Amino acid sequence: MYMKIDHIGIAVEDLEAGLEFYRDALGLEYKGQEEVEEQGVKVAFLKIGESKIELLEPLHEDSPIAKFLSKRGEGIHHIAYLVDNIDEKVSVMDAKGVRFIGDEPTEGAGNKKIIFIHPKSTKGVLTELCQPKN
Amino acid sequence: MYMKIDHIGIAVEDLEAGLEFYRDALGLEYKGQEEVEEQGVKVAFLKIGESKIELLEPLHEDSPIAKFLSKRGEGIHHIAYLVDNIDEKVSVMDAKGVRFIGDEPTEGAGNKKIIFIHPKSTKGVLTELCQPKN
Repeated sequence: MYMKIDHIGIAVEDLEAGLEFYRDALGLEYKGQEEVEEQGVKVAFLKIGESKIELLEPLHEDSPIAKFLSKRGEGIHHIAYLVDNIDEKVSVMDAKGVRFIGDEPTEGAGNKKIIFIHPKSTKGVLTELCQPKN
Repeated sequence: MYMKIDHIGIAVEDLEAGLEFYRDALGLEYKGQEEVEEQGVKVAFLKIGESKIELLEPLHEDSPIAKFLSKRGEGIHHIAYLVDNIDEKVSVMDAKGVRFIGDEPTEGAGNKKIIFIHPKSTKGVLTELCQPKN
């Protein structure tokens, strides 16, 4: 089954300050930004090889990212793996006792099916599986 | 300048328990393990696309990974970017005020030149730059 690191999500207080490092100093290729209202987050996309770095700034205090920032501070929020058949992958992992957040994949931003795996199953790493829908 | 995510280092209490998720459930391709005495760590390598997941288990209590585990628990320890000219990259970033751990790249495991960037400069992410030596 084909897999790659799709993106690494990094929680930041301020997107522009984050871009000063990841775009201007590290030199990653900036691909733009968008607001994802339903997740309460503004996201900046930076390309690196076959993967992306996504900087995540909360849109308001109730955003999960705002809660992460107040509890843990800035840093890596999650890692996302792209898979070519998310339903099959979930089924296989479920049979091995992996704990998911939610019962089945849902529609995510960017026309993808996504599901999160609980950090209890992944050695402390909030982990997303995603599959492009077309 | 060519760049990719070289690896993501995940601190774990026990390599075998980590492999139960990353190799056996998630299905990443296991490439073996090795002990790196000078860093006090046992590393398991798993391939995903052009990158690797590296599970890091401390060899003893004085290992930096042991300290990380006792302070933060299991989870992502660092992210490493492969660059094609580490000296040039460090010089460019240094001029932009990026703070490194150590003055210049040193010899790392696997015949690479490596340097770490301080999390203060990267929005809370311990970040490694590495360049294969041949």
